[in-house]
Amino acid sequence: MTENQRLERYLHQHIPLSAAMQVSVREMTPQTLTLCAPIAPNINHQETVFGGSASTLAILSAWSLLQTRLAEEGLASRLVIQRNEMAYLKPMTADFSATAALRDEHDWPGFLKMLRRKGKARIRLTAVLYSGGILAGKFSGEYVALQDFQ
Amino acid sequence: MTENQRLERYLHQHIPLSAAMQVSVREMTPQTLTLCAPIAPNINHQETVFGGSASTLAILSAWSLLQTRLAEEGLASRLVIQRNEMAYLKPMTADFSATAALRDEHDWPGFLKMLRRKGKARIRLTAVLYSGGILAGKFSGEYVALQDFQ
Repeated sequence: MTENQRLERYLHQHIPLSAAMQVSVREMTPQTLTLCAPIAPNINHQETVFGGSASTLAILSAWSLLQTRLAEEGLASRLVIQRNEMAYLKPMTADFSATAALRDEHDWPGFLKMLRRKGKARIRLTAVLYSGGILAGKFSGEYVALQDFQ
Repeated sequence: MTENQRLERYLHQHIPLSAAMQVSVREMTPQTLTLCAPIAPNINHQETVFGGSASTLAILSAWSLLQTRLAEEGLASRLVIQRNEMAYLKPMTADFSATAALRDEHDWPGFLKMLRRKGKARIRLTAVLYSGGILAGKFSGEYVALQDFQ
């Protein structure tokens, strides 16, 4: 099983909404993570992607990236979303994707240092959403990592 | 069929994610609309309500209130969400609800006037989320109403 398949299985097993949305993991790079979903289970009454689905895919992509990067550092943590903003730029008329990244890669060393020292640290991630090759949404979310068991 | 049941059926038929989340309509008043959902289909890996589900219930509650109020004015419109912010205040450990209202009731007459005159108008709604009797989240979203067929 590839790393993408492992993450996909984890999401579907633990977050049933991700299975209902038919979320799949398209790509993981050291600094980004892309999830995608088909339009059919995520459609709205206007035959475009429902805003709740778009926003959920972005939340999941940022969570997945942060969880994956922390696991690679040996710092598997409980992650809690604190707040988020989402801008819906264009109607999404086809399958859609969300690509997450840190808002600023320079935040990472300080975030890790704080998490190791205090058992708690905060970081902001962003995601861009595409549908049919068009930039259709922008997301920004603040997550807190907690090392409950240290 | 009550008005609540009609709205619920509309949501489930046209927005499949609302059916997967088992969204129901709890209460409609002239100025507020409350949706609720059980935790089971909306759970996450930490056994609390998934942030994407919370955010989606808020988006739906605000959309439903605006759609209902516009229909009562004889102004059934296409509604598009433009942006939203969500604050996750507490973990939600039980069934949860989202109650939507206008951010400011005084915005309503100007919004209607603009929609009638220009066929397009913008308004901000808010929603509060509760779970187990505790205020657990706050949402604010900007929606645009479009009178395509006038």
